[in-house]
Amino acid sequence: MRTHARPLRIAWGDCDPAGIVFYPRYFVFFDVSTAALFEHVLGMKKAEMLAHYGIVGIPMVDTRARFLVPCTFGDDVTIESQLIAFRRSSFDVQHRLKKGGELAVEGFETRVWVGAHPDDPKRIKAQAIPEDVQRKFR
Amino acid sequence: MRTHARPLRIAWGDCDPAGIVFYPRYFVFFDVSTAALFEHVLGMKKAEMLAHYGIVGIPMVDTRARFLVPCTFGDDVTIESQLIAFRRSSFDVQHRLKKGGELAVEGFETRVWVGAHPDDPKRIKAQAIPEDVQRKFR
Amino acid sequence: MRTHARPLRIAWGDCDPAGIVFYPRYFVFFDVSTAALFEHVLGMKKAEMLAHYGIVGIPMVDTRARFLVPCTFGDDVTIESQLIAFRRSSFDVQHRLKKGGELAVEGFETRVWVGAHPDDPKRIKAQAIPEDVQRKFR
Amino acid sequence: MRTHARPLRIAWGDCDPAGIVFYPRYFVFFDVSTAALFEHVLGMKKAEMLAHYGIVGIPMVDTRARFLVPCTFGDDVTIESQLIAFRRSSFDVQHRLKKGGELAVEGFETRVWVGAHPDDPKRIKAQAIPEDVQRKFR
Repeated sequence: MRTHARPLRIAWGDCDPAGIVFYPRYFVFFDVSTAALFEHVLGMKKAEMLAHYGIVGIPMVDTRARFLVPCTFGDDVTIESQLIAFRRSSFDVQHRLKKGGELAVEGFETRVWVGAHPDDPKRIKAQAIPEDVQRKFR
Repeated sequence: MRTHARPLRIAWGDCDPAGIVFYPRYFVFFDVSTAALFEHVLGMKKAEMLAHYGIVGIPMVDTRARFLVPCTFGDDVTIESQLIAFRRSSFDVQHRLKKGGELAVEGFETRVWVGAHPDDPKRIKAQAIPEDVQRKFR
Repeated sequence: MRTHARPLRIAWGDCDPAGIVFYPRYFVFFDVSTAALFEHVLGMKKAEMLAHYGIVGIPMVDTRARFLVPCTFGDDVTIESQLIAFRRSSFDVQHRLKKGGELAVEGFETRVWVGAHPDDPKRIKAQAIPEDVQRKFR
Repeated sequence: MRTHARPLRIAWGDCDPAGIVFYPRYFVFFDVSTAALFEHVLGMKKAEMLAHYGIVGIPMVDTRARFLVPCTFGDDVTIESQLIAFRRSSFDVQHRLKKGGELAVEGFETRVWVGAHPDDPKRIKAQAIPEDVQRKFR
């Protein structure tokens, strides 16, 4: 399925007293990458996507990351993201953050396609991912 | 006017490669302190306060901080917060972060009491701060 | 092995436009919990622990979280943390974030006990976890 | 004095439950902008600059921001940064974040040029800003 890569400069404020990226920041980077992947494939920004498909969001239900090579401020890295599986209302994304061509951090995530609950607008409910979305990713 | 103090432990993830608190974190600390001050004085959590008074939030319009003594992870500090002025629809809060009794960071903020715009629920509009709120702070 | 629980109030700034915790924040919460677990068991703050054992840190090499119940600002939750396995120079911690007694988020992490590299102080190297540390956790 | 502008896309995770940027994030944006300004003018990344001039950092001592127009996720903004004053060991930077050409947030900061203390490498001490640095900014 389609992939998207984006460059990223590690900032001073991304790093901790050991001088390396404070690892929760990688999940922030990956969240931006998933939004960028969807924008790239669907041709809409996240806000437009939410409005167009009538959903509330694509919340995370399971995520994992493996940290292989530490990164520090000033490092120029690339994050390659790929949608690797669609299910009825959930999907998986894989992220590969590379530094100088070497795999530095690997991320995995499972998200759900979620709208407002028909019985209670304050709650949310998983919805079937539109065929149109799945087709564009293939 | 009434004050509120809360203790805070500086965390590893609050600090930067120089080993001291990454300064934007102080604004996060102060935002929590303002919410704690309102909860303490009004006797409601922020979510309840928004619902009770029919407002969307108390967004910041102007904030400043002076950094006098650096703090590092493991430091136990105290933040003293005081509402120092009410105007029609805005108010000022002062924060004093102390470390070992010494003033380490001073914060100032001006926020607005804001509801949904009557003509367009997607926009916001400043509202008069209720007398009841002002009275409780005195 | 020994556990530690700590209370946490979800803040406004922890939440995203969907009104729920922005998931990378949970990893920040868990990092604080691991530091609190070590402080509770070893009787030293993180900075003292680093100095006492002559290490640079306990960096993450693999972490995962499952999100079962969304949390929002004002929620009072508890994080229970337990060291579940020691290996020569790495260890696993499990976190269970509960809201009203219900499991809301589950976190897993593998960290390494790391010192400066003997040949190059700018690099780091895994070290054997001291017996003393392992004994205190049992 | 010389200026530098950089584009920025506001991310989902930059925003709060009111759907607008959580204001401490603007200080993170401005910190990146100051680093970008120095890199642009001196021709070195921040890590190289610290090594080249033998300093520990350029910590903030006073900062302020005014919030005029709210920004939300997906907004494409520009931050224009200018060094507006040099003193012996401190300097001022001004940031102007524009959205659609309109000034949305204004930031001011005073930082100090700081090295290790000659008597105690664990402490820091303000140093005179090199002539070379000042000249490049003019």
